[in-house]
This record gives sequence, C-alpha cells and structure tokens, in this order.
Amino acid sequence: MTTPPYDFATGNTNPETFPAEDFAAAAAAAIPELTVELNRYPGKLGHARMRRLMAEREHDREGVRIDPDHIVLTNGSMQAITLVAETLCADIDAGGDKCVVMEAHNYVGTIRAFDAMGIEMVGVAQDAQGMRTDDLAEVMDRLAAEGRRPRFIYTLATYQNPTGAMMPRDRRQALVEIAAKHDCVVVEDNCYGDVHFEGEKPPALYALDPGPRQIYICSLSKIFAPGVRLGYLTAAPEMLERILAFRNDAGPNTLAAALTAAYLDGRLWQHVEMANAALKTKRDAMLAALESELGNLCSWSRPVGGLFIWLRLPDDVSVPALQTAAEARGVTFADGANFHIHGQAGPYIRLAFGFPPVDAIRDGIAELGAAIRDIRGA
Amino acid sequence: MTTPPYDFATGNTNPETFPAEDFAAAAAAAIPELTVELNRYPGKLGHARMRRLMAEREHDREGVRIDPDHIVLTNGSMQAITLVAETLCADIDAGGDKCVVMEAHNYVGTIRAFDAMGIEMVGVAQDAQGMRTDDLAEVMDRLAAEGRRPRFIYTLATYQNPTGAMMPRDRRQALVEIAAKHDCVVVEDNCYGDVHFEGEKPPALYALDPGPRQIYICSLSKIFAPGVRLGYLTAAPEMLERILAFRNDAGPNTLAAALTAAYLDGRLWQHVEMANAALKTKRDAMLAALESELGNLCSWSRPVGGLFIWLRLPDDVSVPALQTAAEARGVTFADGANFHIHGQAGPYIRLAFGFPPVDAIRDGIAELGAAIRDIRGA
Repeated sequence: MTTPPYDFATGNTNPETFPAEDFAAAAAAAIPELTVELNRYPGKLGHARMRRLMAEREHDREGVRIDPDHIVLTNGSMQAITLVAETLCADIDAGGDKCVVMEAHNYVGTIRAFDAMGIEMVGVAQDAQGMRTDDLAEVMDRLAAEGRRPRFIYTLATYQNPTGAMMPRDRRQALVEIAAKHDCVVVEDNCYGDVHFEGEKPPALYALDPGPRQIYICSLSKIFAPGVRLGYLTAAPEMLERILAFRNDAGPNTLAAALTAAYLDGRLWQHVEMANAALKTKRDAMLAALESELGNLCSWSRPVGGLFIWLRLPDDVSVPALQTAAEARGVTFADGANFHIHGQAGPYIRLAFGFPPVDAIRDGIAELGAAIRDIRGA
Repeated sequence: MTTPPYDFATGNTNPETFPAEDFAAAAAAAIPELTVELNRYPGKLGHARMRRLMAEREHDREGVRIDPDHIVLTNGSMQAITLVAETLCADIDAGGDKCVVMEAHNYVGTIRAFDAMGIEMVGVAQDAQGMRTDDLAEVMDRLAAEGRRPRFIYTLATYQNPTGAMMPRDRRQALVEIAAKHDCVVVEDNCYGDVHFEGEKPPALYALDPGPRQIYICSLSKIFAPGVRLGYLTAAPEMLERILAFRNDAGPNTLAAALTAAYLDGRLWQHVEMANAALKTKRDAMLAALESELGNLCSWSRPVGGLFIWLRLPDDVSVPALQTAAEARGVTFADGANFHIHGQAGPYIRLAFGFPPVDAIRDGIAELGAAIRDIRGA
C-alpha cells in the first residue's frame, strides 16, 4: 500500500519529534542489563520499571498513588479493553445481559472488538463537552426500568476519539455519581491522556472515585509511539485478579517495555512537553488551513488535546463522494460513520493531524477544500 | 517472588547464550531507521523484515516457499493459538460443536486458554513418539459416529510439551490423512521447532499437506528469547483472512520484531546452532544427573530437542508431597497434572533444563533425588 501524500486517516504520532538517537542510546545501554529478564517469561504484570514509571505518571497527573503491582502492562490499550470486556461479560452464558453503555461516536477499534464479542452497544449523546451526562442518566434509568443492567460504562472522557471533546470536571463528577447510583462499573480509556495543548486538565474518573467501581486504561502509544504497543490498566485488587484470570498470552512484551522505560525514565514530562508543542503547531496549522479553505462551508471541533479534528460537511456533500474526490487529490481521512456504534452514516469526517508535516497539512487541507468545492459545483 | 536456586519449573531459555552485546549493537543501529514505522500503527501482519526472515526460516527448514504476506506476527505463539481457536469456534452460538482433539498431555497455557473459551478438549493417547495416530483415528471415527465434528486437531508434533516427544514422519503422514478423511483443520504448534539436538528432522505437517486444511504456528521464544514475545502463524489466504478478522489488538509489536530481525538477519542459523549446542550440554547434564541420582527409581524421556524432560515418579511418591519436599531443598518443577487436558493427576513431573546453569542442574537433580528418597524412607 502506498501512503497517500496527505494522510489524515490514522491516529499516528509525529515522527519529527521521535527521539531516535537518545532512544537508540538508551536501548543499547539497557539490553545487556536485561539478559536474564528477556530469557524468562514476563509474568502477568510485565516489566517492573515501566510499571513504576506509569505509577509515577499517574501520580504526577492525578495526585493519586497507585501501587505499581496494581498496574498491568498490555499490548497497547486495545488488549486492555478486550481483556476488561471479556472479564465483565464472562458470565453471559449464565443469562447475563451483554450490554455496554458508551459514547455513540467512539473509537472504531473498540466498536469492532465489542461487535466481535457479541456485545450490545447502547449509545449516549455527545456534544463539544463529551458524553452528555443528562442523556447518560436517562439511558441508565431506562435500562434499569427494563430490568437491564449494563456490564459497564465505557468512556473516552479526555480528548475523545473521534470528536476530540474534553469532558469537564462537573460532567465527570456526574458520571461517577450515575455509575454509583446504578452500581455500574466504569471503564475509562485515557489513551490520549497527556496529549495536552492548553486549558484545564480535569481529573481522571478514578481520581474522583477511589472505590472499586473504576477501571482505568492508559497508553504510551500517543505520548511515545504506537509501534511499541504499550498500554496498561489499573483497577482495585479484586477486579484486577478477575481480569488477570483472562490473560492467556504468556505476558506482555518485556523488550518493548524495558527499552521504552529506559528512555523515558527521568525525562517523561520533558519528552511529553516537547512532543505536545510540535503537535500543537500541527493542530494550529490544520485549524488555520480549515479556516482559510473551508471557513464558510464546514464546521469543526477545536480540540485542546489529542490527535483529531471532527469536521461536519455541508449537507450536499456525501462522505463517500468526498472520499473518492479527495483520494484523487491524494487526501485520505476517516469516515465518521465508522466511529458510530451502529455505523450510522452522517455528515462527519475525522481528520488526524499528528503524523503529516505542517506543509502537508496546509496543502492537504487545500486539496480537501478543492474536492468539496468540486462536488458542490458539479 | 524470589527465584528458587534450582528452578526447573518454567520453559525459559538460556541467558548464557543470549547475544546481549551484538543484539544491543543491532538495536542501536536499527532504531533510527525505524522512526517513521514506529510512529505508525503496525497493521495486521506486522514488521515486514521479520516476516521475510520467518519465511526464509520456514523455507530453510521445510523447503516450502511461503509468501511473507501470508505470515502474521503475533504476541508470542499464545496469541496465535487463541486467535485461531476464536476463529474456528466462532459460530458456536449458531449451534456448532465447540470441541478440539489434541494430545491428552499438552501445554498448560493452551489448556487454560481453551478452558477459558469454553472449548471441550478431547484427548488422544501419546507415547515416546508423540500423538498415537491409531488412537487419533479411533477418536475421530467415534466423534463422527456420534455426529460430532471437532473444530480442529491441535498438535505439538515436534519436541512436544510436556513429554518432549518427536512425532516421526510416518505418524505425521497418518495424521494428515486422518484429518483429510474427516475434513478437519489441523493446527500445528511448532513453537519448539529448531531447538534441535540430534537425529532426524521430520517435515512439518504443512509441508506434507499443501492444502487449505493446515494452520501452522511458530515462535521466536525458544530460539531467541521469550521476553520479545514474538510468534507467527501462516495459513491459506482465505483462512488467514478469517483469522485476521478476529485481530482486535491494533497490530503486533513493531519495536520487538524490528530489533530482533535486525539482529537475526544473516545469522539466524548461526545463532540457533550456538544456542542449541549449549542447551544440548544442559540436557545431557540433566540426563546424566538423573541417571546417577534416580537411575533405579524413576524413568524419564530422552528428548532430541525442546526444553523439557518428562519424568515418571515411583508409585509411592505423590507429586504434591514431592513438591513440598523439593521446595524445601530449593527445587521447583511442574506438576504433570497441570499439563493434562482434564487435570488428571498422575506420577509425572516436567523438568525444564534451559535456564539454570549446568552446575545448578547437577546440584538440583541431586536435591530432587534426596527429596524422593526422603519421602520413600519416611
């Protein structure tokens, strides 16, 4: 597959800020120290230094101390999501209700995984501030009235994918309270956490509710690189034990965790700040290009973090038609329908700005604008 | 957890032959070349150089050319096993028969995974030459007579875990023919493949049957290191597509695959021969120690490859009693009952010889002998 010149389709990260030299030096220094560990199976939790580092990361961001032995490394956050879903839906054959409540527009990988697992997805309405908790309350009450009990509430509260929305603190508090009222587990997927450009940083849900109801998932894919496939999860010990009983992969990747920890240890936030500054420049370039090319035609989100802009097309431009026209001009993007839990078509597309250079962002958005005008003129 | 001085419990590899310096150098040289690839999601197949290298490995061993695009990298062979099992058991809700035919003593990780997936395991008798194909024929005929159709036959034909048995060519041929007669998929787990000490190397099952019925799984855990979590699978294109539809992990580890490929490329067999020579010395040391310490008390396998010796205890020594007595002397091993598909207790233990130094093997087997004699004397 040839990469299109203007690839806005995938949530890749910025190669320009990848610390290749320092990472190579850290890796070369770390490998000889790893000889014994690499020759053993990793165990269910994974490389200790990375777990300690991620406990520090959570403490620095949330002010909460997590025991590193309550952190489980996973092959990206996706393995954490499927492990948790398997665990919480395990007794379905015993007559349970295999249903999950989540933002109606959500990450396509999660939607596909839940679909493959036979999970019924119940959508909650969203706006520029993320999941609408008034709608969540209604959905949960309605399900309860029907005698149904969802397995968990799944939320991307921070820099939501695909909408880019940041849920403010009052909604987070409301979400936690609704979950408590219905005694429902909350699975918070914070995989974009720390890809922060400006504004407030409301607390993670687990920082608002220290009880056993919260399961928290995070990742290094967006602050370091997706190719290292490093995610992690934390939960109360009893829940963690239930989740680990479903781990049948002989453990997470020691090499990737150890080398990445060797690089990040002592400079995690310095690295994150450097990477975020470059991503903010790219976001600004995309917002500026959208304004100048599409300002009178479309509307779009203004994300304060994450990797995506969510764009609403004019009603007379269909997404499939635009995909064809844009591809002819070397532009790819993601169809918003793929991110709807039931594949519902709509006037939305998702634009990823992390990977392409600033010049390509400018030129590509100009091409996208031309493609839209072509369609409208035809 | 403190490591016991004489750890014969786990199938770890030999740290003494781990090429730490050369691997560190290869990693440091490779990382800068990987900047773009690491910042993208890996795709469903994984790092191309490693897939090409594994296609070469298979060609060198089996004389069969596999298109590298028909090789899928996985997080260890365990992910390959669970992906394949998920795929082949997917239509169970539509009334299928979720049953798998396999060696009755088998890898504990596979047994646990199948168990968690609700798979019914039907055992086939084994001897020093692996799965007894006369019994396989009977089992398959019996199931057919009952109107049942197993989802697949799962076999560790080469250096079987836990028994260490090597299935000779005629049995492999028979297995392939029985599978054809019943039109049953065969899943061959060759994760110990290439940990070879002496004697013939019969062909893999896929080399005996080029048809679409064979699924083949292999690994780098035993020829390089388990901490890199690198496995792979290959199958006919249509089957591969079905399997990939179940991959929901956003792809395999680029970093681990790329660094390991950078080291192994051009010296795969040289590395394997060096590692095998040291493992053979360890196997020989364990066999010699068993002979001198337990020659008149126990019987055991004499594996021509792999990492394990399968030992039969005297009838008056129970495994749990021996575990307690041996642990007090710093010796750990695996209870054979864990490797039985239905957990059936028996007079067997599995001894792993890959990880401990030769001295520890000698001293540890002496302690094991003393523990056995203690129990018999009591």
